[in-house]
Amino acid sequence: MIDRLIEGIKKKKAPIVVGLDPMLNYIPEHIKKAAFEEYDETLEGAAEAVFAYNKAIVDATYDLIPAVKPQIAMYEQFGIPGLAAYKRTVDYCHNKGLVVIGDIKRGDIGSTSAAYAVGHLGKVMVGTTIHTPFDEDFATVNPYLGSDGVNPFVDVCRENDRGIFVLVKTSNPSSGEFQDQKIDGRPLYELVAEKVNEWGSEIVGNYGYSDVGCVIGATYPEMGKTLRKLMPKTYILVPGYGAQGGKGADLIHYFNEDGLGAIVNSSRGIIAAYKQEKYASFGDEGFADASRKAVEDMLLDINGALGA
Amino acid sequence: MIDRLIEGIKKKKAPIVVGLDPMLNYIPEHIKKAAFEEYDETLEGAAEAVFAYNKAIVDATYDLIPAVKPQIAMYEQFGIPGLAAYKRTVDYCHNKGLVVIGDIKRGDIGSTSAAYAVGHLGKVMVGTTIHTPFDEDFATVNPYLGSDGVNPFVDVCRENDRGIFVLVKTSNPSSGEFQDQKIDGRPLYELVAEKVNEWGSEIVGNYGYSDVGCVIGATYPEMGKTLRKLMPKTYILVPGYGAQGGKGADLIHYFNEDGLGAIVNSSRGIIAAYKQEKYASFGDEGFADASRKAVEDMLLDINGALGA
Repeated sequence: MIDRLIEGIKKKKAPIVVGLDPMLNYIPEHIKKAAFEEYDETLEGAAEAVFAYNKAIVDATYDLIPAVKPQIAMYEQFGIPGLAAYKRTVDYCHNKGLVVIGDIKRGDIGSTSAAYAVGHLGKVMVGTTIHTPFDEDFATVNPYLGSDGVNPFVDVCRENDRGIFVLVKTSNPSSGEFQDQKIDGRPLYELVAEKVNEWGSEIVGNYGYSDVGCVIGATYPEMGKTLRKLMPKTYILVPGYGAQGGKGADLIHYFNEDGLGAIVNSSRGIIAAYKQEKYASFGDEGFADASRKAVEDMLLDINGALGA
Repeated sequence: MIDRLIEGIKKKKAPIVVGLDPMLNYIPEHIKKAAFEEYDETLEGAAEAVFAYNKAIVDATYDLIPAVKPQIAMYEQFGIPGLAAYKRTVDYCHNKGLVVIGDIKRGDIGSTSAAYAVGHLGKVMVGTTIHTPFDEDFATVNPYLGSDGVNPFVDVCRENDRGIFVLVKTSNPSSGEFQDQKIDGRPLYELVAEKVNEWGSEIVGNYGYSDVGCVIGATYPEMGKTLRKLMPKTYILVPGYGAQGGKGADLIHYFNEDGLGAIVNSSRGIIAAYKQEKYASFGDEGFADASRKAVEDMLLDINGALGA
């Protein structure tokens, strides 16, 4: 699956992913009004607003981008109807030819991790019938429980040609509380990085990258530089661009010399672009066009920094 | 909410929780047959079988136990219908007066963690209407992202009288890969434990325990003993009893001198008891009665070890 992602990145000259993390307060009033008129102010109404918002943004940007990253928490907060909107979003993006990275940050042990893995990236058997419940292409995984938690995902990736991004160094201010703690002089995130190499060593694709990628926040560029060297075959999913403070120039060391190796996510900066002063002229009705313009600007920033 | 859990434990003399982690291969054929006749071998069929199985076990055990712990992965693997069965299980257990610990192991940052927290333990607003989507009483939380990930849960617990159990030392064999790594001579899980104290310090109930609990596996009794002293006000949720190898005698140091402070989970050992040689005489049809007997035996083992 990493090969398909790389091909999309190369074809569209776009090492970026749009984070579909819809908060209700990002969604323009006219979208919410239409959804609530149909479903009232129910969880179904919220879910309908979320899907309509996503759909408009995807329709306005899919030709520019290789992938989307829906953040499942933003759907899960609306219960079962919200999760149904997540699944509709995954399917809609697939129909538009996009790679879908499910930002689910799951992680448990043994058969429990396997259940998450098959539910999101694989197949489950019911009697003698096979189902693919959520059917994302990639999922993000939390490594705190160790190999017992990650290996079931790796097995499912191998069997179904899917991929994962394991959290190594996250973009938030307090990520250092545990991740930066020194073990024999080296931070914990480097130990996790070494395990990422190990977990991914047997599922490497045609471009030399593994289906086991990692997450490193844009907000820690020096650590990104070190980690890039430590995991040469690992694709890095980079959150924290834009709204969280990361800039294109900070991110050049997340890439390898082949111009590959990283994919930068922006969520709020794209999907709620119309709320920024910079894109205010699009107005509420033009929110999706504002998102398209924000994608174009992000590409200029990042490709400019890369000299691509 | 920790007070309600403690009151249930005291009233029923049962410091235990039944893990509702239904794998399809645990479920007796007659239950699956009935579900598949109604819904075919669909995800709805799997979900119906899971709920019917849970319901029978809850009906046979609810008077003996204070709480259940459904493992959401086992439902999520069946997609949206599976998650609907999770929600039905939560509601059914509430109707039986049980405290529900959602074993969801979520954890993200900022507004994303807040979305998980309100979706599972709090309220979401849709327009001007308030909803309580999943409505568990407790949730398990992964601490790898630091305080940014946990504090939004703590806030929701404070506002809604709910609780969390933060992963400190998990029961699996490879939990030591990261959790046991030494930082200035002390294992990482002790650092996490200190943060658990901090996160929970302002929401302490009438029995002196915080609404912020922790998870420590039954399979590491020596570490449990140390951690008990390090977190005197923290309730410990203890997985790994039974099928994973933990015994009552190993667990006495997880409790405080007040006889409180820990609640021991058994999943497979209870819900699939009828598959054990010891309970084989109940037969497939008597699976729920076998679960009841397994609960009684677990209580004898644990209360015996505690001298209660």
